[in-house]
Amino acid sequence: MGKGRLEAFSDGVIAIIITIMVLELKVPHHADIEGLKPLIPVFVSYALSFIYVGIYWNNHHHMLHATKSINGAIMWANLHLLFWLSLIPFVTGWMGENHFAKWPVICYGIVLIMNSIAYAILVKLLIRHHGEHSLLGTAFGADTKGRISLAIYAIAIVVSFIQSWLGFALYIVVACIWFIPDRRIENKMGKEEELHHG
Amino acid sequence: MGKGRLEAFSDGVIAIIITIMVLELKVPHHADIEGLKPLIPVFVSYALSFIYVGIYWNNHHHMLHATKSINGAIMWANLHLLFWLSLIPFVTGWMGENHFAKWPVICYGIVLIMNSIAYAILVKLLIRHHGEHSLLGTAFGADTKGRISLAIYAIAIVVSFIQSWLGFALYIVVACIWFIPDRRIENKMGKEEELHHG
Amino acid sequence: MGKGRLEAFSDGVIAIIITIMVLELKVPHHADIEGLKPLIPVFVSYALSFIYVGIYWNNHHHMLHATKSINGAIMWANLHLLFWLSLIPFVTGWMGENHFAKWPVICYGIVLIMNSIAYAILVKLLIRHHGEHSLLGTAFGADTKGRISLAIYAIAIVVSFIQSWLGFALYIVVACIWFIPDRRIENKMGKEEELHHG
Amino acid sequence: MGKGRLEAFSDGVIAIIITIMVLELKVPHHADIEGLKPLIPVFVSYALSFIYVGIYWNNHHHMLHATKSINGAIMWANLHLLFWLSLIPFVTGWMGENHFAKWPVICYGIVLIMNSIAYAILVKLLIRHHGEHSLLGTAFGADTKGRISLAIYAIAIVVSFIQSWLGFALYIVVACIWFIPDRRIENKMGKEEELHHG
Repeated sequence: MGKGRLEAFSDGVIAIIITIMVLELKVPHHADIEGLKPLIPVFVSYALSFIYVGIYWNNHHHMLHATKSINGAIMWANLHLLFWLSLIPFVTGWMGENHFAKWPVICYGIVLIMNSIAYAILVKLLIRHHGEHSLLGTAFGADTKGRISLAIYAIAIVVSFIQSWLGFALYIVVACIWFIPDRRIENKMGKEEELHHG
Repeated sequence: MGKGRLEAFSDGVIAIIITIMVLELKVPHHADIEGLKPLIPVFVSYALSFIYVGIYWNNHHHMLHATKSINGAIMWANLHLLFWLSLIPFVTGWMGENHFAKWPVICYGIVLIMNSIAYAILVKLLIRHHGEHSLLGTAFGADTKGRISLAIYAIAIVVSFIQSWLGFALYIVVACIWFIPDRRIENKMGKEEELHHG
Repeated sequence: MGKGRLEAFSDGVIAIIITIMVLELKVPHHADIEGLKPLIPVFVSYALSFIYVGIYWNNHHHMLHATKSINGAIMWANLHLLFWLSLIPFVTGWMGENHFAKWPVICYGIVLIMNSIAYAILVKLLIRHHGEHSLLGTAFGADTKGRISLAIYAIAIVVSFIQSWLGFALYIVVACIWFIPDRRIENKMGKEEELHHG
Repeated sequence: MGKGRLEAFSDGVIAIIITIMVLELKVPHHADIEGLKPLIPVFVSYALSFIYVGIYWNNHHHMLHATKSINGAIMWANLHLLFWLSLIPFVTGWMGENHFAKWPVICYGIVLIMNSIAYAILVKLLIRHHGEHSLLGTAFGADTKGRISLAIYAIAIVVSFIQSWLGFALYIVVACIWFIPDRRIENKMGKEEELHHG
């Protein structure tokens, strides 16, 4: 089964998710600059989520680039990931509007964890489909980055019960870890091509 | 006439439908966890519709994969399907906000039936265009799954007049039946390829 | 200059236009069937606009199918068409919410006229780019259907000052005229291929 | 790394940005023509932003057409551009709703400047990736148009503190400068092809 339409559909959904988040930045009814002040946390929250969704799109792109074919289970794992991604605008708006209060920050973390798990499931199914010795299998073998992220998310949630700003800061830390695109695939592919041509 | 742009357009519309549904999850204005409680039925309703739209995309993908060319009637049958799919966010929001009350659950079922009929029309036109002995014709010959779904939808609507939660449960049953992607095409294609190469 | 990305972008914009119209169908806050009654004109208005946007997408698809290359002017003519298409959700919502009252029906007609003109400009530029003796030039030479539509729109607007329901009925008439996809291109292409191969 | 999915994703996001802006044109609840009057500045504001986003799409299209491959940094530079583009609907709505008052017009200019800078960064990274003597490098060598735009934006912002309508007029001036698609690439490509074939 071809991967083309899966990529196109995922791109469409992720493009919509990343864009409708901006609708939470409600246009103020007055023209004075003071009207923007309460929007600052909403804006900060939007910027972080934009980066998160960008990271997911980026890694999704890399991973599917290394994919040769898909099956029904992979399609559903992908939809499962898109489902949790689609909840990011909701928690983003809630967190921003309530100035990074306890519960919104915790829920934001839970949604991030669910996204992380959904992504891991997708990776696992792709590796199973392509074989452990495939490019995908060796590149994503030990998902250290993913495990560290999960741990930090968990710490962030616990910490948020006491000081929610600290939890939010930890989400920024994870975003920084992932900001650099996943070079594992790129490196592997570069080496394979060298072997091929060299 | 090529099918490429029909696929792309359908993907776009379905991607938007599946994503704007989440806008019904209105961000609560307060930060306490209690604010999420009234959103639980909206969330459950959203999750079910996400799966339904996912199923339609999945099967649409499989069916058009087996399609070689299209004509004007098929284009309109496809738009007709997209029209009924586009009403899913509306009934989803209505059903969730009213905690699965009688009329919203009934209307949800009616929209599902209309989608089911629209899909059957699309299948019929595709088979007529490709011939009954084509891959599509033999794979979709007796649409047992489709008939069973229609019957359950009808029962669900009748049952909802008495107990709407039961109707909702029946919609979940149909979703489970379809959750497994349509292997008819995949099986047929596998066999054809075997015949070809074997 | 390739036409691929122009098609993709147009598909994206049209897909969003056709889908966000449904957001005007505001979810009623009560669960009784009475709550749907005031939505009936909004629904009728939505259905008509869905067909209109579908017609534009359909014809746009056919026309660009016969197009070989584009230039900067064509890109802007295309964006100009998308601009007027993007106003359809607004007039649709206004017309539906006000039960086909005079001014909304008139404005709906004005937007349809502007779309019609924008489409004609796009056709003209495409013909100039490909030459009058090209497939496009001969197929769209005398745009009879387009002229008739324009005339009916104009009559509909005048009539709406007295009886707006009649104006609305005339919009349905034009939709029926166009409902059948533009076979001019298909016919021409069929003949060209015959000439080629025969 | 292929550029195909980057183009597709950018097209998707830009298509959504250009279309959701129209949601700021809120449907009036009454049917009389007077209800449209307060929407005129919102409409004018929308039309200008539609042209701006169209210009960005147009130039983005041209630039990526001349691009052969991309890397991780280019992906993020592209997402950075999409981020600032996604803020255009917000400032558009704010400016329109407040009849081109001082602060909204200033903020609109700031967002335009940020877009301009984000675009320049993307160009710079693409040139660095392809080499200064590449098609991209020579075509975009001295970005005179970009520099002039930045200067006018800056003047517009300063001027808006005294007379915001004048600032708005300057934004129209810049749009006119860019309205003509970027022929630098087209010219260069034409010449290269001549050299190749001549």
